[in-house]
Amino acid sequence: MPIRNFNEKTLTAEVLARLHATSDPRLKQVMTSFVKHLHAFVREVRPTPEEWFRGIEFLTETGKWCDDKRQEYILLSDTIGVSMLVDFINYGDTKNATESTVLGPFFVEGAPELPMGETIAKPGTPGEPCTMRGSLKDTKGKPVANAVIDVWQGAGDGFYDVQKQEGMNLRARFRTGADGKFWFRCVRPVSYPVPNDGPVGKMLVATGRHPMRPGHLHFKFTAPGCATLVTHLFVKGDKYLDSDAVFGVKNSLVVNFRKAKSGEYQANYDFVLLPEKRTRPARKRR
Amino acid sequence: MPIRNFNEKTLTAEVLARLHATSDPRLKQVMTSFVKHLHAFVREVRPTPEEWFRGIEFLTETGKWCDDKRQEYILLSDTIGVSMLVDFINYGDTKNATESTVLGPFFVEGAPELPMGETIAKPGTPGEPCTMRGSLKDTKGKPVANAVIDVWQGAGDGFYDVQKQEGMNLRARFRTGADGKFWFRCVRPVSYPVPNDGPVGKMLVATGRHPMRPGHLHFKFTAPGCATLVTHLFVKGDKYLDSDAVFGVKNSLVVNFRKAKSGEYQANYDFVLLPEKRTRPARKRR
Repeated sequence: MPIRNFNEKTLTAEVLARLHATSDPRLKQVMTSFVKHLHAFVREVRPTPEEWFRGIEFLTETGKWCDDKRQEYILLSDTIGVSMLVDFINYGDTKNATESTVLGPFFVEGAPELPMGETIAKPGTPGEPCTMRGSLKDTKGKPVANAVIDVWQGAGDGFYDVQKQEGMNLRARFRTGADGKFWFRCVRPVSYPVPNDGPVGKMLVATGRHPMRPGHLHFKFTAPGCATLVTHLFVKGDKYLDSDAVFGVKNSLVVNFRKAKSGEYQANYDFVLLPEKRTRPARKRR
Repeated sequence: MPIRNFNEKTLTAEVLARLHATSDPRLKQVMTSFVKHLHAFVREVRPTPEEWFRGIEFLTETGKWCDDKRQEYILLSDTIGVSMLVDFINYGDTKNATESTVLGPFFVEGAPELPMGETIAKPGTPGEPCTMRGSLKDTKGKPVANAVIDVWQGAGDGFYDVQKQEGMNLRARFRTGADGKFWFRCVRPVSYPVPNDGPVGKMLVATGRHPMRPGHLHFKFTAPGCATLVTHLFVKGDKYLDSDAVFGVKNSLVVNFRKAKSGEYQANYDFVLLPEKRTRPARKRR
């Protein structure tokens, strides 16, 4: 029987039926759900051909803005709450461990490993000097040794190194010793706009949203036997804590960056890592 | 009251609430629906961070493949049935007029206008010679004069001009006279694969689908007082009529390309254009 001549109602079933030979069952599940929800969206908004083409242009332009220093699709995912949704799905149930938040578009592999106590800021970096101290424990309270701590942040002018014509700055790796402690020097995090000169910036303007994120310091912890933790520490009192452009703020991650008598800012935080097996989300099987 | 500290359930409502200042009501409607359906998809498939990143990479790569001769996002839209869904939504109710189908990724603005009867194939173009004849009428049966007819097609080797290192070929514009008739020479359309060396091709392979389209000739009609019509004529007997990779086949557009005694192929089709106002889809207002 010929299976041509669909209509608005029968088309989706035919597109789904065409997935029948997908060999990877997980891919089949993802594609089936994607087609179903995408068609439901199109059916609901009923785009004109011109509107549809504007959507095509937006997605195309978003891809074109991506290079090794700019990931506009991560930024899109972040600003429409998808990244945090994935975060909640995977790490929502942290119990007594430290909460996670978005990776963001500025993580770079291969930051230099520095000795504990070093500064991550090159001389001349804009910003107020700050010392960050803390410790790393597992959920049983045992110090986590030999953990790799990736830290990265924007400068006091609100820009990350990759947004400027300069080499790596304000990013480094530290490795914990037997006591699981760490300390390093950085700059006090300040609020800043997400990159808004591209298509995501236009989307934010068109939807009446500001592009600001509250000041924060990024962390990624990788340790044997522990679940990888990607998180931030946010600056207490920042005016954008309640309207973060990427929906990333969690109360437990807001920290007092206090000014010491020396004029330097200081902050402390004790991180708790989940055991390795806790990273996988519960899948809803059909 | 601080509105931070969302969870998997409350996050979507917050993302939707952030759209409150969108000045264009249509954009607000589209973004609201998009966020809602995208979040529903993510909630259903529960991607790991690695799966989410593979999605980011797919979207990024799809954008990167786009240039002035290749539109991979249109191809993605075509191959997952979205383009035909938009077509049905906008032009589903054609009644006694000619049915539409997808534009496809190979339309190019600015094709040369040729006198009626000319060939659209440069000398040496692969393919069997063919003459296409027909007429253009409105729904009252009146010939449509002064209509611009854009025609384009792939060559007998299955490739469009923009897929090769050559200038414009197998695309042209004709203008109807008072009788609304047209005729021109071309090559007999053959089945061919959609471009499958990019991310969409990988998606087709991974989902066990072939990339083939049944042979067809593209038409776009623009005429004063008439709705623009984008459509194809398909070759009767083509083996891919029931499994078109972009879901574009409609029975009423399947035509006999018969071989004349001279050895040349010939086809005829009488097109009927809707009046202008019929192009806008009925919007579901909320």
